[in-house]
Amino acid sequence: MGKIYIVGLGPGGIFEMTNRAEEVLEGCDIIVGYTVYVDLIREDFKEKTFLATGMKQEVDRCKIVLEEALKGKKVAMVCSGDAGVYGMAGIVHEVAKDHPEVEIEVIPGVTAACSAAAVLGAPLIHDFVMISLSDLLTSWETIEKRIALAAQADFVICFYNPSSRKRHDYLEKACKIIMEYERPETVAGYVQHIGREGQNIKVCTLEEMVNAKVDMFTTVIIGNSETKVINGKMVTPRGYEKHYDV
Amino acid sequence: MGKIYIVGLGPGGIFEMTNRAEEVLEGCDIIVGYTVYVDLIREDFKEKTFLATGMKQEVDRCKIVLEEALKGKKVAMVCSGDAGVYGMAGIVHEVAKDHPEVEIEVIPGVTAACSAAAVLGAPLIHDFVMISLSDLLTSWETIEKRIALAAQADFVICFYNPSSRKRHDYLEKACKIIMEYERPETVAGYVQHIGREGQNIKVCTLEEMVNAKVDMFTTVIIGNSETKVINGKMVTPRGYEKHYDV
Repeated sequence: MGKIYIVGLGPGGIFEMTNRAEEVLEGCDIIVGYTVYVDLIREDFKEKTFLATGMKQEVDRCKIVLEEALKGKKVAMVCSGDAGVYGMAGIVHEVAKDHPEVEIEVIPGVTAACSAAAVLGAPLIHDFVMISLSDLLTSWETIEKRIALAAQADFVICFYNPSSRKRHDYLEKACKIIMEYERPETVAGYVQHIGREGQNIKVCTLEEMVNAKVDMFTTVIIGNSETKVINGKMVTPRGYEKHYDV
Repeated sequence: MGKIYIVGLGPGGIFEMTNRAEEVLEGCDIIVGYTVYVDLIREDFKEKTFLATGMKQEVDRCKIVLEEALKGKKVAMVCSGDAGVYGMAGIVHEVAKDHPEVEIEVIPGVTAACSAAAVLGAPLIHDFVMISLSDLLTSWETIEKRIALAAQADFVICFYNPSSRKRHDYLEKACKIIMEYERPETVAGYVQHIGREGQNIKVCTLEEMVNAKVDMFTTVIIGNSETKVINGKMVTPRGYEKHYDV
């Protein structure tokens, strides 16, 4: 019987991948993924068969993977970041639901929130939420409600998919909702093209983030009321400084 | 000048680490960390100098790291999971705040939420929050407020530090707060000792989670209103099934 692995690559190429992910890809017959991600690793696994599909073809990609696994192949579906965070791990399970005989294993990777946080400093040290600003599959009303409640709870907020051509003002709207609960000078930051060519980092305020020019390859983090800037880095305290001599 | 690296090891030993993390540890003079995590990698980096300190000695550990960096050493502080999620990345920046000449670099790893999600199936596919149930450094009032608002927003909720000897009923209290907003049959799950000896996985309901016997090495995930069980796995839909023929 074949097997499906859903593998998170982390932010970049093979250097950002776990040893386990690398071993799984080495052991597979076929590697399937979105063109951009497949291209990041093609050179490192030259002897493998690659199948690349375009954007918005997620369901078709899963059907290809299932078909190959049913033929007895070991197939890896690769995703950027972690396959379980807004990734393909969910839809693969849904497409394969009538085939319990096909084993599915998710191999985790470093998700964009964590790799963005690492280059910004340490913004996710305390309770945080992840919200995707894409309304392709979720209503904007649900997204707005979640942003408001997250801000009210003083969570650090990490936005995935903060913008696209059609949704150029979504980050602006989101920041304005947060400003109803948090101060305009709340520390914020973003990272574009994490770990890839053209990586761009900015630490600023919530108010400045309203007009930030970000694209769909950007991860945005809005601090909580205690987040501060230390030597240019964005740092959310865990609370040690209240109890220890730091 | 010395340099400080704060390195996330992921859930287990060297196999769960990224290639970048491995290279950084190879290039360091000293590796510092909590005894349990240092022991996970000691055998893989035999030629390195290790400095291990006990629990609740986080601030002291940072001061050792800073002192060695000021002497010109390359020092790695290792953490389980990701160093930026309830990890040491924050407190290192705080302890080193008066020494901007010491470079600090965070090397991200796979955080427990992602490794727990991977073995449970795909519970974090949609918007989620991370909440630590430890009230050592955060007031229980703040924690309760965040749980209630997160449940109201129908976020998937991931709990870190769900229990300890002194806080044996915290997960019970947390689940009861969520039940004010979500159905008792909401899908939930937990993983103990992820990626290590004695790994234990359970998929159950929110109501059953109230009485779950978990320890501080457990990661708990409570699904949102749409999370379902597919062939024994916990899966949160992204929304494809509403728009595509899955």
